[in-house]
Amino acid sequence: MSGSFSYQVKARDGRARTGAITTPRGVIRTPAFMPVGTGATVKAMFPEDVAATGADIILGNTYHLMLRPGAERVARLGGLHKFMHWEKPILTDSGGYQVMSLAKLRKITDAGVTFQSHLDGATIELTPERAIEVQCLLGSDIQMVLDECTPFPATREEAKRSLDLSMRWAERSKTAFGTMSADGQALFGIVQGGVYPDLREASARGLIDIGFPGYAVGGLAVGEGQEAMFDMVEVSTAMLPEDQPRYLMGVGTPADMLGAVARGIDMFDCVMPTRSGRHGQAFTWGGKLNLRNACYAEDASPLDPESQCPAARYERAYLHHLIKSGEMLGSMLVTYANVQFYQELMAKAREAIAESRYAAFVEDVQQRYAKGDEA
Amino acid sequence: MSGSFSYQVKARDGRARTGAITTPRGVIRTPAFMPVGTGATVKAMFPEDVAATGADIILGNTYHLMLRPGAERVARLGGLHKFMHWEKPILTDSGGYQVMSLAKLRKITDAGVTFQSHLDGATIELTPERAIEVQCLLGSDIQMVLDECTPFPATREEAKRSLDLSMRWAERSKTAFGTMSADGQALFGIVQGGVYPDLREASARGLIDIGFPGYAVGGLAVGEGQEAMFDMVEVSTAMLPEDQPRYLMGVGTPADMLGAVARGIDMFDCVMPTRSGRHGQAFTWGGKLNLRNACYAEDASPLDPESQCPAARYERAYLHHLIKSGEMLGSMLVTYANVQFYQELMAKAREAIAESRYAAFVEDVQQRYAKGDEA
Repeated sequence: MSGSFSYQVKARDGRARTGAITTPRGVIRTPAFMPVGTGATVKAMFPEDVAATGADIILGNTYHLMLRPGAERVARLGGLHKFMHWEKPILTDSGGYQVMSLAKLRKITDAGVTFQSHLDGATIELTPERAIEVQCLLGSDIQMVLDECTPFPATREEAKRSLDLSMRWAERSKTAFGTMSADGQALFGIVQGGVYPDLREASARGLIDIGFPGYAVGGLAVGEGQEAMFDMVEVSTAMLPEDQPRYLMGVGTPADMLGAVARGIDMFDCVMPTRSGRHGQAFTWGGKLNLRNACYAEDASPLDPESQCPAARYERAYLHHLIKSGEMLGSMLVTYANVQFYQELMAKAREAIAESRYAAFVEDVQQRYAKGDEA
Repeated sequence: MSGSFSYQVKARDGRARTGAITTPRGVIRTPAFMPVGTGATVKAMFPEDVAATGADIILGNTYHLMLRPGAERVARLGGLHKFMHWEKPILTDSGGYQVMSLAKLRKITDAGVTFQSHLDGATIELTPERAIEVQCLLGSDIQMVLDECTPFPATREEAKRSLDLSMRWAERSKTAFGTMSADGQALFGIVQGGVYPDLREASARGLIDIGFPGYAVGGLAVGEGQEAMFDMVEVSTAMLPEDQPRYLMGVGTPADMLGAVARGIDMFDCVMPTRSGRHGQAFTWGGKLNLRNACYAEDASPLDPESQCPAARYERAYLHHLIKSGEMLGSMLVTYANVQFYQELMAKAREAIAESRYAAFVEDVQQRYAKGDEA
């Protein structure tokens, strides 16, 4: 594995862009959706099927992996890519978000965060340096600085205090990354600042001063609503360099993603296609369908006649039966079809941007999604 | 779908035989193992992967399917093959066994069995005629007469009474099948009689008098032990026609199956490879492995280097992690590898019989299985 990390914009349509991130493990076409592979597996999918959907990159969760099977163990086994049979790029988060949402007895100081594992209660310290060390042990291609995901709601003062802490951690993360990382790996900074435009701007400026090859927008989709989220995305991307990739963390629905692309975002991750898939909620070119609904019990039509996914050929009546019966195959098929839908959505967005018809494409998807059974 | 049902012995080695059952939906090479597709799915497997393991036929459970999604519904949707994306032959049981093991408030009379669904408590009657009707609605290629699986232990008198009831039901099943079945479908009788050789003989004789194109040996592997099971198989197959297939129901371990083949059995079904797979117990050419064991945590060797299964290429350390974490992918991979192992075991048994070296083959497998971590 050698080579360097770079990003190139290939076309623009308004503020939307399509381009390519080049990494030693392959090219990531943007806008890109990264399926979430929490515990070294995109849940309920064979890795070759994840690749077959067109995913150029997946996301791994540092928090989950450091607890089980452990970063040192993954490193001894040859790194995360080899461990989970995924040769293309992997982005890892810093672990900070899951510490706050899953771990017990969290204590944040300037040094880092101390918490109890949700698995066995062990006391663990996660510092900016350890977050980078873990990500380097995993061998991820794109790594994230440790930050504090500012909760919502937060007062301006709370958001400011949180942002200042994240900024100090970002600087320490970069220093650690400089000593530990391998050739071609990249570290992204994360814009925070809650729903306060001036804090978002200050965050972006501070991170650019430190200097990263890409930037994420964090702390959104945490309850602030789509309008506030889009506002914060717009403020953030307006500050960020045009020639570097931008990643909106933890987002989202098709509408959220398309709206964020229109505001200059290039990368997404979200558990929605996989988690919804396991519970029988399908994303299709005809809208969102809840396969548990009785209306599908004798619906002999395929899940999504417009999808290229082999799983989308299965009849809705069969999927309804599998999901109602709690059969794994139901989760496997709907997850596969959902991840494929998310990839097809990104592929069509890239095409639309390249052909300067992005607004019409978004309009078309919105109309399709008005038709689903849960529009 | 047209054509007829036939069976041809191609080679013998002692009492073991290899041959082929021809059905309108394809040829079943014997000895054959039928993966169990309880609720219209071989649990945790894509149907194309079931086919890729070399399975020529799968089993469906009448009890489960009549309760959910319902036989009439499956018929309206085009039959079980179309419903579950499996074009090759399907054998269905009669539902009687699961009524006794799963349903509540069972009441057996000469007419049939009345029970409460374990799903919603609905009162349902299963008669020999209804069992055939359900199997014809499902459209299965090989159907089974309704019988009472004689429990173990049972006194000679209880076993005799149970056997007599099953014999009357067998006759009614055949009559119903004559009026309802389609061209090329076959109905098998089931030898009962507990662990009493003379009752087994009487059962076989009675069924032959009624006349079926194939015979099952039922009521075994219910706690009587391997020696008694082999004895009853031997007594039963000695009575059965040489030119018709013989199916040992609900069996079993590799050793059980190989021993039964040596005693003239041609077909098997068992939940073992799928159920064990979901819980991380793997059947391999190196023996049986419990992937939950700590010894696999950093074992970088593939699950089974001798298997042709794509799932068996995955490293034991990764499978250990997935199973310990409760990840579906762990169940998916180990199930796939197990079903493939069962098919490879049958394929090698067929080859060994054809080459008159069956005893040496059985000896080799037994030695391999002495090496597993749970020998």
